[in-house]
Parts: sequence; C-alpha cells; structure tokens
Amino acid sequence: MSGCPYFEKRHLLFKNKPPTAEGEEDASQAGVNKASKGGIIYGEYLQLDKIVSAQVLQSELKGNKIHDEHLFIVTHQAYELWFKQILWELDSVRHIFITGCVRDERNMLKVNNRIHRIVMIFKLLVDQFSVLETMTALDFFDFREYLAPASGFQSLQFRILENKIGVPDNLRVPYNRRHYRDNFKGHESEMLLATEQEPTLLKLVEEWLERTPGLEVDGFNFWERFEINIFDGLNKEKENIEAMEDSEDKEEMMLELIKQKELFTSLFDEKRHDHLLSKGERRLSYKALQGALMIYFYREEPRFQVPFQLLTSLMDIDTLMTKWRYNHVCMVHRMIGSKAGTGGSSGYHYLRSTVSDRYKVFVDLFNLATFLVPRHWVPKLNPNIHKFLYMAECCDSSYCSSEDSD
Amino acid sequence: MSGCPYFEKRHLLFKNKPPTAEGEEDASQAGVNKASKGGIIYGEYLQLDKIVSAQVLQSELKGNKIHDEHLFIVTHQAYELWFKQILWELDSVRHIFITGCVRDERNMLKVNNRIHRIVMIFKLLVDQFSVLETMTALDFFDFREYLAPASGFQSLQFRILENKIGVPDNLRVPYNRRHYRDNFKGHESEMLLATEQEPTLLKLVEEWLERTPGLEVDGFNFWERFEINIFDGLNKEKENIEAMEDSEDKEEMMLELIKQKELFTSLFDEKRHDHLLSKGERRLSYKALQGALMIYFYREEPRFQVPFQLLTSLMDIDTLMTKWRYNHVCMVHRMIGSKAGTGGSSGYHYLRSTVSDRYKVFVDLFNLATFLVPRHWVPKLNPNIHKFLYMAECCDSSYCSSEDSD
Amino acid sequence: MSGCPYFEKRHLLFKNKPPTAEGEEDASQAGVNKASKGGIIYGEYLQLDKIVSAQVLQSELKGNKIHDEHLFIVTHQAYELWFKQILWELDSVRHIFITGCVRDERNMLKVNNRIHRIVMIFKLLVDQFSVLETMTALDFFDFREYLAPASGFQSLQFRILENKIGVPDNLRVPYNRRHYRDNFKGHESEMLLATEQEPTLLKLVEEWLERTPGLEVDGFNFWERFEINIFDGLNKEKENIEAMEDSEDKEEMMLELIKQKELFTSLFDEKRHDHLLSKGERRLSYKALQGALMIYFYREEPRFQVPFQLLTSLMDIDTLMTKWRYNHVCMVHRMIGSKAGTGGSSGYHYLRSTVSDRYKVFVDLFNLATFLVPRHWVPKLNPNIHKFLYMAECCDSSYCSSEDSD
Amino acid sequence: MSGCPYFEKRHLLFKNKPPTAEGEEDASQAGVNKASKGGIIYGEYLQLDKIVSAQVLQSELKGNKIHDEHLFIVTHQAYELWFKQILWELDSVRHIFITGCVRDERNMLKVNNRIHRIVMIFKLLVDQFSVLETMTALDFFDFREYLAPASGFQSLQFRILENKIGVPDNLRVPYNRRHYRDNFKGHESEMLLATEQEPTLLKLVEEWLERTPGLEVDGFNFWERFEINIFDGLNKEKENIEAMEDSEDKEEMMLELIKQKELFTSLFDEKRHDHLLSKGERRLSYKALQGALMIYFYREEPRFQVPFQLLTSLMDIDTLMTKWRYNHVCMVHRMIGSKAGTGGSSGYHYLRSTVSDRYKVFVDLFNLATFLVPRHWVPKLNPNIHKFLYMAECCDSSYCSSEDSD
Repeated sequence: MSGCPYFEKRHLLFKNKPPTAEGEEDASQAGVNKASKGGIIYGEYLQLDKIVSAQVLQSELKGNKIHDEHLFIVTHQAYELWFKQILWELDSVRHIFITGCVRDERNMLKVNNRIHRIVMIFKLLVDQFSVLETMTALDFFDFREYLAPASGFQSLQFRILENKIGVPDNLRVPYNRRHYRDNFKGHESEMLLATEQEPTLLKLVEEWLERTPGLEVDGFNFWERFEINIFDGLNKEKENIEAMEDSEDKEEMMLELIKQKELFTSLFDEKRHDHLLSKGERRLSYKALQGALMIYFYREEPRFQVPFQLLTSLMDIDTLMTKWRYNHVCMVHRMIGSKAGTGGSSGYHYLRSTVSDRYKVFVDLFNLATFLVPRHWVPKLNPNIHKFLYMAECCDSSYCSSEDSD
Repeated sequence: MSGCPYFEKRHLLFKNKPPTAEGEEDASQAGVNKASKGGIIYGEYLQLDKIVSAQVLQSELKGNKIHDEHLFIVTHQAYELWFKQILWELDSVRHIFITGCVRDERNMLKVNNRIHRIVMIFKLLVDQFSVLETMTALDFFDFREYLAPASGFQSLQFRILENKIGVPDNLRVPYNRRHYRDNFKGHESEMLLATEQEPTLLKLVEEWLERTPGLEVDGFNFWERFEINIFDGLNKEKENIEAMEDSEDKEEMMLELIKQKELFTSLFDEKRHDHLLSKGERRLSYKALQGALMIYFYREEPRFQVPFQLLTSLMDIDTLMTKWRYNHVCMVHRMIGSKAGTGGSSGYHYLRSTVSDRYKVFVDLFNLATFLVPRHWVPKLNPNIHKFLYMAECCDSSYCSSEDSD
Repeated sequence: MSGCPYFEKRHLLFKNKPPTAEGEEDASQAGVNKASKGGIIYGEYLQLDKIVSAQVLQSELKGNKIHDEHLFIVTHQAYELWFKQILWELDSVRHIFITGCVRDERNMLKVNNRIHRIVMIFKLLVDQFSVLETMTALDFFDFREYLAPASGFQSLQFRILENKIGVPDNLRVPYNRRHYRDNFKGHESEMLLATEQEPTLLKLVEEWLERTPGLEVDGFNFWERFEINIFDGLNKEKENIEAMEDSEDKEEMMLELIKQKELFTSLFDEKRHDHLLSKGERRLSYKALQGALMIYFYREEPRFQVPFQLLTSLMDIDTLMTKWRYNHVCMVHRMIGSKAGTGGSSGYHYLRSTVSDRYKVFVDLFNLATFLVPRHWVPKLNPNIHKFLYMAECCDSSYCSSEDSD
Repeated sequence: MSGCPYFEKRHLLFKNKPPTAEGEEDASQAGVNKASKGGIIYGEYLQLDKIVSAQVLQSELKGNKIHDEHLFIVTHQAYELWFKQILWELDSVRHIFITGCVRDERNMLKVNNRIHRIVMIFKLLVDQFSVLETMTALDFFDFREYLAPASGFQSLQFRILENKIGVPDNLRVPYNRRHYRDNFKGHESEMLLATEQEPTLLKLVEEWLERTPGLEVDGFNFWERFEINIFDGLNKEKENIEAMEDSEDKEEMMLELIKQKELFTSLFDEKRHDHLLSKGERRLSYKALQGALMIYFYREEPRFQVPFQLLTSLMDIDTLMTKWRYNHVCMVHRMIGSKAGTGGSSGYHYLRSTVSDRYKVFVDLFNLATFLVPRHWVPKLNPNIHKFLYMAECCDSSYCSSEDSD
C-alpha cells in the first residue's frame, strides 16, 4: 500500500542492489523516482476508477440519502471481491486435478498453498462481520425499504463457489419453497447449472484419494490388513473382559465392546456405505474413504505429510464456511429480528437452516474421527511399502510444471 | 450475503410480520419470491459488473500469466474499497464539526459511532495482511517486474486520508528525496493540496476541545484550580520528605520531587507549549490540551462520557494506523528484503521511517498520560458546575438533526 | 510484559519526569534500577509458581506421555483464567445495579466499559480456538482415554457465568438426561444453586429499563403516544391503499397491512406478552420492553446515548457466547466426529443443542428489530421531556463514587 | 470447555459407538454419566484451585482496592501460560534436532506442526492486547504505584524464550544501562546463562540447513552451478544492453547491471559473509545460507515442500514477535506516555529500541529475498538429483518414532 515499494522493475530482469552501509536516515531516501518516466501507475493498474465509483446509494437516488447505506454497499463489494479471489484459487486447484498434474507430486505444494489461501480468506470474511456490525438495526431500518427485491441470496459468485466445492443440488435447502436455481434469472441460472455439471473439488479429491498408494489389493492392501487387525484387537479385548470377575464394570465394558464391534462391522460394510451415500450422509466413495483413513494413520510418512495437510485444510474450509453462515445468521437476527422473515422473505430461519452438516462438503473427513484406533492396531509398514511412501512420483513434462498449466 | 434477507420492502413503509407458531422447518420457507416482480437485484445494486471485472493481470498482458498476481490485485482493491469507506465516515464527521452541529450534543453519538467504525475498519485492514502473506517472496518475484513504476505510495485515497485526519505536510518523510506531493501527477497533486487546506479532523477536534465546559476563566476555571492544587500537593509532599530522617531514600525522593515540579512547571508554561507546537512535538493548542485533560479527569460526568470515548477512539485510530504501517513494513521485509530498496526504490527503509510518532496525529492525547495526578489533587466540582456537566446543550434546528446535515 | 515499564512507583505519589531533549539512544537507557532495592517482583506478583506449575499430564502419570496433552491443559486453563476475569467484571456491574448506584448516572460509564470489556474477552475466547485447532483428531485420540470422566461440562465457572448473566435453569438442555446441576458434586451443586438465586444481570437490567425516564404515565407517557401514532399511521396507510386502483399489487399490500396491524396489536397486548414470558419466548417484563424500545428510538438524546451502547453490548455478549458455543461444536466435530457421543457422552449433539436462542439471555433486544417504525411515527419530544432527557440524575453520596462500591 | 465431551474413555482402549438413526433431540441426551463413578474431574485435572486463586491485588493489600488491577494480573498470567506452552513446543522441536531424529524425515511433520503452533499462539498473543487496551491510562494510574519495582522486563519465561530461539546476548539492548541478565536475581540469572549455552533453534536449524541434499561438492554442487548461471546470465544481460542504441535508458540499465553484479559478487564472497556474521548482520553460516537458498528455489520438489514451509514458519515467528513488541510499545505509549520513562524506568524508549532487526533471529531468511533470480537462471535438476529429492531419508529406530523421543 502506501509507499509500497513493490513495483520497481522496468527493463532488467531484476535489479536488486548490493547492501550498503548507509544509515537508516539516508536509506529511506535512496530511491529513484520512476513514475515520471511512463508506464502503468497504481490507480490504473488497480482500475480504481471502476472500484471506487461503484457505490451508488439507492436511498440517495430515492431522495432520502442514508449515511449507513454506503457501508452496506462497500461491505458487500468487499465480500464479492474476495469471493472472486476464492474462485480464482479454486479453479486453479481444480485445474491441476482435472489435467492430472496432481500426479506430479511437485504440484502438491501448490495445491496445498492455494487451498490454504482460501482458508485464510474465509478467516478474514468471518472477521469482516465486525465492521458491518457497527450498523445497528435502527440504522439499517432507515434504508432497508429501498433495496427490495435485491437479496444476498442472489450472490451468484457465492452459489458458484458452493457448487464448485461440492454442495450438491439435492441437499440444498429450498429458498421460499423454490429450487435455489429458480431464484436466478435465465443467464445466471444457466451458469449455475453449468457449474453443477463440472467436476467439483469434492469429486476430484475423491478420485485422488482412491489412488492413495498402499490401497492396492495386490500390494500393501491396507484395507484388508486393517480389518484383520481391528477384529483381532477386538477379540483380544473380549477375552480380557471375559477373564475379569463378574461386576457391573465388566458388564458395561462388554456392552461397549459389542458396540465397538458393530461400529467397525459397519465401517467394513460396503453396501451400508453405499446406502449412506445415496442418502447424502456420506459423500466420498468407499475407496476414497479408505485412502483418507490411510493418510490419517500414516500421515508422518514423507509422501503423506502434505496430503495430510491438505485434508486438514479441506476441513478448515468446511468449518469456516459454516462459521461464516453462522455469523451471518447472528447478524441478521440483530438486524431484523427472528420473526421478521415470515412474510417478505424467509430471512433468519432460511439462513439458520443452512448452518447444517448438509452443507459440509467434506463431512466424511470429520466423521473419520469416529474410526480412530490405537496406534498398535494400525498395520505396520514393511520395507517395500516404505520405499514407495518415501519416494514421490514425478513427471517431467513441462506441461505440468509450467504456470500455464493452472 | 447469501440468503441475506435484508432487502425486503417494496410498497409499504414497513412490513414486518406478526410472529407465528410455525416450526423452524416451515419458517425457513415462509418467504415470498419478489425478484420476479422487477426492481433492483443484488448484482446490479452492487455494480458487480465493475467490481469483479477489474482484475487485469499485467503478467498476462505481457504473455507470462502469473497466478498470484490476482491475489495482489484483489488485496489492494479491497484496501482501496475500505479506504473509500473510511473517507466517507471521516467526511461525515468533519461535516458535523464544520457546520457546528456538534454543538447539539445529540450528534455526539453519531460522531462517536462513525469514528468507532473507522477503528473497526482499520482493525480489519491490519488483519487483512494475513491473506497477502500467503504469497511468498518467490511468488512475488515472478511478476514484480511487470508492475513498474506503479507503487503503493501512489495510493491517492490513503494520502488524502492522512491529510484529512491531520498528518501535516511538513512532518512527512520525503519520498525519494521529493516532497510527497511531487510524486503525484498534476490533477492528483492538486487534489492533495486541496485536502491539505481543508480543516483536518485534528483541527476540528482542537476547536471543540477549546470549548470544553468548565474551562471558562469566569466560571469553574479548571486550569487555575488545577495548577493551584498541583503545587499545593507538591509542596505538602516536600514537607513530608523534609520531615524524614536523612537516608539514601530521602535523597532519591527529593530528587524525584524536583523532577515532578519541573514537569508540571513545564505543563503550565504556555510559551514552552507554543515552542513545542512550532517544532511539531505538540499538535493541539494550549487551550485544547486543557480541555482534553479536563475530560480525562471528569470523564464520568454525564456530559463527558461520550467525549471521553471519542478521545479514546481517536487514539485507537492513531495506534491502528501505525500498526498498519508496521505490518506493512514487516510484509515488505519478507517480500523484498531489507536492502532491496537502496536502488530503484527506498522501500523498506522509507516505510520504516513512517512508523514514527511524527505520523501520530493525536500524539498529545497519548502524552497526557504523563500528567496524570492522584484523584484527590483534581479540583472538586461544585454544585454549579455539576449542573452544567449534567445538562447537555441541544439545538432544535431541524438542520442538525436531519440526515442531510451529514 | 517484557520490558514493560509499568511498575515504577515506590515512595512518591507519582513521579513522572519532565520531557527532555535526549535522543532515543539515550532515552532507552535512562531508567534507574530498582529491583535490587526490595519490594515485589514480577514473578511473585503474578504468583507464577502456581500458574506455570499447574500442568500435569495424565498421560505422563499413566506412563505414556503424549506431547499434545500439554496444549490441551494450557488452553483450558487460559479459558478458566478469562472466565474468572469475566466473573470479576460481571460481579462488579451487578453490584453497581444491586446497590442502586446505577441511579447515579456517572456510573454508567463504568457499567458500560466493564460490559464492553466482557465483550472483548469473549472475542478473544472465540479466536482462541484457532490454537487448540492445531491439534488433530489423531493427536487427541492418543491421550483422550486418560481424561475420563473429566468433562468440559464440569466447568463450574462457565455454569456460574451463565447463571449470573441469566440463562434460566428451566430452559437449559439437560445433560445426559439429568438436570445440569446434578452433574456437579455436592459443594459445587450448592454454589450453582446459590448463583441461580442471586439477581441476574438480566433481572437487574430489566429493573433499570423499567425506570427509563419518559415511560411515566403521568409524564411523557411514551407507550400511549407510541400506540396512538402507530395505529394512526397504519390507518392512513390503509386509506392510501384503498384509494388505489384494483390490482394484484393492491391486494398484496392490503394483506401485508393486515399482518402489520396484527403484529402491532400483539405488541400492545400485555397478556400475550405475559404468556410468551411464561413460555420463555420473552424474557423482559412488559414495562422493561417499553423502556428498551424508548431508548432505541431516542438513542441520540444525551441521556440515552450510553444506555443505548449498553443495550448493544448486551447483545454482543449474547452473540459472542453463541459464537463461542458454535466454534466449540465445530472443534468437537473435528476432534471426535458427530456420532462419537452416542455412547459414553452426548458430545457433539449436546453441544449443538445449546447453540440455540434458548441460551440467548437478551433475545428480546434482538427481537425488538421486528417493531421498528419510520422515524416520523415516533412521538415527538416536547420541551419538557427534552429537559429531563438532557439532564442526568446524580447522587453525591461518596458511597457510589468510591471504588469500594464495586 | 462447556459440555466438552472429550474425556470419555475409561476401561476400553476406545469406545466409539456405531451411528444410529436417532434424531438430534435424543442424540443430545444419549450419554452416560460417569463422573459419579470416580476418576479425575475437570477442576482437579486443570488444577483450577491454583489457577483461579492466584489473583491477589496489591492495591487491595495496601487498602485501596482498584478494580482494574485484576485485569492487569489475569492478562499477564495468560501471557505467561502461553509462554509456557511455547517453551514446551520449542523444547520438543529442539530435542528432535539435538537427538538427530530430524534426519528421519518422518519427523518433519511434527517439527513443522509444532513450529506452526508457536506461530498460532503468537497470533493470539498479539490479539490479546485488545483486552488490556480496554483499560485506560487513568485506570492504570490508580494502581500503578503499588506495583514497583515489578516490571514486565522480569518475565523469566520470555527471556528464556528469546534465548532458546536465538536472540544473542551481545545484540540485546541493555536495560537501564545494565546487561539484561544483571536485572535478574541470582537463581534466575543462572537459568538465563544456562539457556544461552544450550543449542538455540537458530543454531539447530543452521546445522540442518548445512546438510541440505544437493549442496554436496562431489554431487549436484548447487552453489557452483548457481554461481556460474548467475554470472552467465549477467553477462548476457550486459551484451544485450551494449547492443542498444545510446540513450538515458541504456545508461541507467548499465548502472543497474553493475549494481547487480556487485550484489551477487558479494553473495559469493565467503569472507564478506563472515565479516557480516561477526557484526551480527548475518546469523546463518555460509553453508546454511546456501541450503536455505536451495530450498527456496527447489521448494516444489517433494523433499523440500515441508522444509520450505518450515522456513516460512520461522519467519512468521520472527515477524509475530516483532509485532508483539510493537503492539506492546503502542500500549505503553497510551498507558504512560512517551516521556514517562526518563526517570524511574526507560519504558517506552527501551521497548521501542527492541523493535529492531537486531531481535529478528531469522533475519537472513528475509534478506534472501534480495538474491532471487529468474526461474531460468536456477540450475536444472538432472535425473540423479531428482531421485534423491524425491526419496526421503528414514530411520527405523523406534527411538525416533516414539513419543518419548520428544
């Protein structure tokens, strides 16, 4: 920003200067003025003529200028700017997956960083409510009437964002009894439909998880080994309990053991998984779930370190989106009350209904916490598997390493 | 934002609905769709066509699209959006002062809220660095060369902001040995000059402080009473020390007492004040300083409660602007190193030199902490003064209470 | 903190020094070392021997030291430290109300600042989750077993906090089918019962609101005037609509008008209010609600400025407590999954059920947004009422102005 | 925290339950109460008797209880709690390095996560100032006199933290003209000396960087290749410029080229490096600097992805510590003014002098940004080097993989 010395290059590829022994006093004035020599300047570069001229108050147009409407506009514009940035990152990550470049594991750093950047932006967006919250219900009331029928629901970028991450069409809460897409005009509705048909981040991550090294049935065969270990473990547990003297404790432990067995029996039941999938209670394929669990258990293996971070960041996105929704609900409650929406809009109650696990795309990653087991139940890696968990795959095609690829 | 039910009014002045006994499930769908009936919709209202089309990558134009340049642009645009909002609030507050509407004490709530809003925006702007910090020096290096000679220094809105708050022209650090204004093109340079000539927030607050009730020489005469109390207190202190047995402690206490006396003698020395003013080490007039100190000591009196909050918020702005500058320095250090600027730009060192008390407009309010005294040294209020510290001034002219006035 | 120069006084009442012309270099070394002369030092003052020795890992005691348990302990201890501070502020505010000192309006600044401080602490507590979230479900799993049957539900300070603010006993979600108090041991259970019987912040605010100047039936009589204005307004509205040509729009507007009328009829129906009170859907008395609405509408009157801020801060506390609960739910989902609690604990689902308006103590203040009306429907103040809205009440008893009073 | 369902295990190794089809209503009550069965409970586990009883107000002891002193104590205790946690993480990371376990690259995830956790804690500590800032200078003045001679400078944990990270003894700003250690009592002074003599994080990272694969002179020999490429590049640049027609631009470009050459000549000058080292302007050995630069340029190679993150996190720690110091300065300015310290303590000016690059331990990592070059100047990796940049080193000794090792 101010005095920001970023933009200094012109002719040479680079022109850093050798450190000198100058004192600070001089150093702060050591620059050369170049703005006068032509080239793009700050305001043009950022197209500020567009950005800072886009605040038109409806209240003013209607002859009753209300001061706080300006804040309302700027806040929403800031949200939309950041949504654009999130889409930029999301599209680039999806592109790396779609083109297969993710198989070159050098690209995992990029994928991880960009997903992490989305996380940081969402954190900012959650904090950003604190600014709009300086407007009271009474200030808002003064210009609210001029805004109809505009509604935040109509944020196209936010709906696209949800679609591209993987909020499924059929799990969405309807809006005023209509399918969400029917609340948009023709052109926008088509764009939404189109994004629903593109591969979602969820789908792409799923395919990648299905390829997790170690799952191969003719190789390490993690899933089979894991199943064996678990039931061995549970059986030993059972023997231990049976050897105890009769007591209330013993009874209780036996009951719990039975429940554990049911839990894991359900984990290894592919049909049940598919049934939950069909109901939307699970989102990842059976194979992808195995991959995720494998990454969880072997997260310290060099090849899994960054993938494990990635799974964590995906949960961060889900969590932050849901916090964002909840912060939104809280603000709306304060602005228009809880009952306000029963007429002209479904406001508070509609929003509250979206703060739900239905909108958590990577809910399976959270629920894997249910299936954690003690470290010594996890199948040991043998030297062979070690080798390939230490050796990353690469691909020297310039295609995947060049910036153009994303 | 999404599903935001703000915009619901159309024909009636208001149309909240009576609470019903509907369960949540139904309540979330109880709205009526109005978008189809015409009127402005979200994207038009926010002029999103401008906002989200203003990201043109210089690297792409020059045939080498660099992914991270998009973040760089969006971040700066978000800063500029918020600068616009800060200017909006600042202008409205200055207007209330300039028109004299601040004398109607009903307007103090507005003044205070809007200054507080600026505080909240600056907090967000400080946090916002965390997003740009997801870009590494190496990512930045890839497109830095395309940006010359644009520089964050050229942010017109930020310079105007500084001017309107009250950063004085003659205390500014030169930029590359030039007067700050000479780094701007003709039209912008004129705008800057114009804002230097408008009444600054500092100046307006100064005039308001000079009118603090209780300063009247023919009334409560705070300053004289305060001076008397202080020197009485110090003399009693001296007597107490002199009555002590000789010891190292006594000696030290006496030395400290002498320093205290010097300190307060300097406080009541108007000529010294004016000398410090001329050097830029003080910024408020002698009288305004008295008003500020009076508000400090009697902050619990009803008429001074909101003024005291205002003084606190003014310090918050100073503090946050300086934190913003320092966060900026930290980011630049990481992006281009400390020595980078010795040639093409004075970067790191220029910015570091602006993290200085010279840029703290309300520095006097901070330094008043030097002149605090025990509560019992503060002149007691008598019933007469009480009355007017409990009774606010008002003015029923519709001019000052209507929204148009700001 | 480090180098923090707070603690400098010893013998004199104060000993600030006169500003000198020393350069920074010297100034940074201008102090005098006093630690050697006796008196309390930092570590003793803060009782750090207790604070930093209170981290005993259960996992270590049980022979399997798990690194991350330390974070778990420190995080919870930090929460408890801050809960203690919140209780300190809350008790002092309640004391000011209970003793009647709140009638001396000088004390409103104190009340407001302390409530605002609670707000700031809750903001920190919400942010603090980001630290514990650096622990993954797998890290937690490693030591989780050692902690039973300890549970965060058992945080006595948090339950007391809820009680003192005003979460009513009968609206609490039971914990594992038991009354919340039955989950505590004898002594603690008694303490909880005792705090339930003390005047809650809600109750004290209610009594204060009931005394809002302007409500007097033999004075300004706000409520009657307000009722008259509203129904006059609605009737004029009705005439305007009836004068329109028949159309779908007209019909819709008429329907909405009817709903408005129902809404306001319900507002002025004291019996209905008492019915909602009995069901826990309202929490403030009918009279207190009138006071709150009066403060809302006349918030710019000098006497109402700080009261209005107070009402806003009370909503902030509610909002932040509910955000804190929701952040907690999110973390638990990640740590143990959503289904985990169906056995040994009701975990995720219990917590989720507390993120509810039932736990919003000042829910009525939010819902007042439903009853906003255009500014010109609000009864005009006449000169008489003006006077007392500009003139605060005070009380010169030293009791209420001394620190001991709180 | 409240209702936190963490602590649920007792007898079995784990006892998650199979998901059931229960509705939320029931699910929230599905737990079993275990507290009554014995075992540790929340308050005992956290030793809350110590934690929440450690707030003794000096003002109260001296007969003049000042409300705000409680906040002052709790805030500092919270800082110390978190310092303890930071030391816990720091010691564990240092242990992994000291024992050589860092050579098993599986441990990089742990190292990275724990360093990242320190980053997150420092972020919280920076935010935490917002709570103490709710105390005004006047509130502080009321109890400041009771605290002498305690001083935040005396925070032993913070000094140890600085030492263990690597703030060198000889670059520290003296405190009141004395060596920092001389401000501590005998026992503490010895502890400080001892920590100065332990391997610092800086030193350990340096040794690790010196072993960066690819630096081997008989292997890939990065440094030689890099030097060749750079001077080749610069020479080609020179030819291009010489081929231009004479102009002001050409002259300027030639001047800049010469400066570039000087800059890089200095980079490859080991003697100069050692000279800067001796002055404290560089902190890493010549070899370690090479390793860091190598990781920078090849950060996408699988083996370097996590090391690159680590270098970034180390800069984060430096940046956040410096922001913490700066926030501290800002608060002190507000609390006691800028001149206050010229007598009893060097306050503001001492603190300000520590906001300096002298206190940035990893300053070399920032300054590497000065030596970035275009991607095509970076030596290409050949298939051999590729292999070992994809294949991590491991070590199967149980020593390094068990928790005891750290």
